[in-house]
Amino acid sequence: MKEQESSDTRPVFELRPIGVIRSVLTSRRDAPKQGSEGAPDAWIEIDPSLVEGLLGVAPGDEVIVITWLHQGERDTLQVRPRRDPRNPITGVFATRSPDRPNPLGLHPVIVRTVEGARLLVGPMEAVDGTPEVDIKPVLC
Amino acid sequence: MKEQESSDTRPVFELRPIGVIRSVLTSRRDAPKQGSEGAPDAWIEIDPSLVEGLLGVAPGDEVIVITWLHQGERDTLQVRPRRDPRNPITGVFATRSPDRPNPLGLHPVIVRTVEGARLLVGPMEAVDGTPEVDIKPVLC
Repeated sequence: MKEQESSDTRPVFELRPIGVIRSVLTSRRDAPKQGSEGAPDAWIEIDPSLVEGLLGVAPGDEVIVITWLHQGERDTLQVRPRRDPRNPITGVFATRSPDRPNPLGLHPVIVRTVEGARLLVGPMEAVDGTPEVDIKPVLC
Repeated sequence: MKEQESSDTRPVFELRPIGVIRSVLTSRRDAPKQGSEGAPDAWIEIDPSLVEGLLGVAPGDEVIVITWLHQGERDTLQVRPRRDPRNPITGVFATRSPDRPNPLGLHPVIVRTVEGARLLVGPMEAVDGTPEVDIKPVLC
């Protein structure tokens, strides 16, 4: 934790990517809004230094992948959901918009394959190159 | 994004708290492991500069609160789940351990009350003072 140099005195936490999404989706415009809307499977390439953290992750597992939506606009506080002008203006904390103060993405997926430090998961709507920051099991 | 000074060349993303948890739970030792295990309700105090982002968040909503588990140990890659020696050693990405490279916590909760920039939510197992970094609606 360190202090920011600006007048904003909130602390800053340093998030480091644990891996990266490798997908056939290359543009945010072309990607489905949610994985359940026809998204493909995607590979997650985990940093080799963290592969021990995958012990116990197995095909068939339901997990939540957390990404850093690096194309998100961090100063956006209100949106029209799905960019549809018919939808009312809504606070970003009541939406899944990638535009939000901390552009974290939550992706519930199924693990298809585990190959060393690579996982095939799906469905995954994040675009190719999206940094990944955590994986957690789904709890009932 | 900036580069770290160490030999680790992974980029760093700057996560800023959007608020803080105010809870009767004050010690990680005393807190339930999951909200569903008897955790109390807790207040979330949102930064006043971000209150516009709450438009549309209402009592009864099911949301996922994302916290920064500031007491987590970031160099831990394997644990015995629930700190129980009878459990096998497991990679942190197959567990919900707060000890993990990026100590993000996911908390599915119900919104009980909204009062300006304060939300009462529950059940919430995070301890008092835990920084909060995002709120998202649950999608079916």
